[in-house]
Amino acid sequence: MTTALDSAQEEAFLDSFLGMIRAADGDFQALIPLAAASLDSGSLELIYQHLMRSPRSKNAIAQRLVNAPFDFEALAQLPENSLGFKYCQHMQLNHLKPITHKAFENNYDYMNFHLSETHDIWHVITGSSTDVLGELQLEAFYVAQLKYSRFWLALLAKNLAKAMVYDIEASTAYMERVIHGWHMGCEAESLFGVPWNTLWEKPLVEVRQSLKVNVS
Amino acid sequence: MTTALDSAQEEAFLDSFLGMIRAADGDFQALIPLAAASLDSGSLELIYQHLMRSPRSKNAIAQRLVNAPFDFEALAQLPENSLGFKYCQHMQLNHLKPITHKAFENNYDYMNFHLSETHDIWHVITGSSTDVLGELQLEAFYVAQLKYSRFWLALLAKNLAKAMVYDIEASTAYMERVIHGWHMGCEAESLFGVPWNTLWEKPLVEVRQSLKVNVS
Repeated sequence: MTTALDSAQEEAFLDSFLGMIRAADGDFQALIPLAAASLDSGSLELIYQHLMRSPRSKNAIAQRLVNAPFDFEALAQLPENSLGFKYCQHMQLNHLKPITHKAFENNYDYMNFHLSETHDIWHVITGSSTDVLGELQLEAFYVAQLKYSRFWLALLAKNLAKAMVYDIEASTAYMERVIHGWHMGCEAESLFGVPWNTLWEKPLVEVRQSLKVNVS
Repeated sequence: MTTALDSAQEEAFLDSFLGMIRAADGDFQALIPLAAASLDSGSLELIYQHLMRSPRSKNAIAQRLVNAPFDFEALAQLPENSLGFKYCQHMQLNHLKPITHKAFENNYDYMNFHLSETHDIWHVITGSSTDVLGELQLEAFYVAQLKYSRFWLALLAKNLAKAMVYDIEASTAYMERVIHGWHMGCEAESLFGVPWNTLWEKPLVEVRQSLKVNVS
């Protein structure tokens, strides 16, 4: 197995990366080619091997753990300090819906689904807002947790590049979020494979503690 | 004063940034357009105002402090643990020569000269090697110290982008160097304006201590 990209992959990746720098924050259309270009089998295999070292992540991959369906009406009735309420609130405030569950072709396909399905739960767990600073913090958290993710490293580098072109006054704030997200991601347990749908009723602070996610 | 780049500056900056990602490590030709594109007066003014808050940096700008000439024969005779010997050794091992002193047109021009003249001293002081990991560490150090530098943030983002395309296996090592360089840069005193040529005989560890540069 090689993790080197061929020249066509490399061009597609760099083109999509530059497209993301130019795109407005939150432009999800620009994300599609970047996602396609950064999911090569070489780096996915490295992430897979890395996740297999965590019993929880390994089990989730083997079992094809899915958190859906999400009963937002029920989550909204939970105590305000619960994970489920906070997640429901996050989804409603940001007008978000979970991605749809589908059949999985292979381990990589499942991994990508699980990471997408749980992305907004990771926002809540890590206390990351949905503006550029919160996304940057969460991107660094993913880079620390997944270790070999071209996609999340691309988003992180893209946002630093945006700061350098469009928002140099905020460069220290950007860097501080990268540092904080990185440290959180290194200290926390592997979040890939947490069965979130069994934890909705627990207080968010307790869930964070049990997974060693230190948001302060 | 505005720090926003106009569209021609923005294009030149992004072109040179992409050129740096594609260039081989240590390709100084690719650095020239990036340096030209990232030195806009808006961000230089922010750096200038920031440096003026440090009495040492302010004084260096006012006095046009220059460390040249460097007497490498004399430095080579100093004790092996001295700053001067270590600097001389670094320059010889890497086949480097200090840039030439010239007249200064204005404060920005002087700032750029001083940063260039002392770049390899900063390598030695921060214990940063000249390979990509050492450069990345030093780039993060600069970003922390200068706060508004498009140039150093561009080099940092460029190297993360290189990892994402060409060296994803090393992504954790890359990030660790960014984190370490950032923390060193935040904790250290402002190195801009240190009169290094008065410190050659002092042990490197003492100079680091006096400037709060914690390399470990």
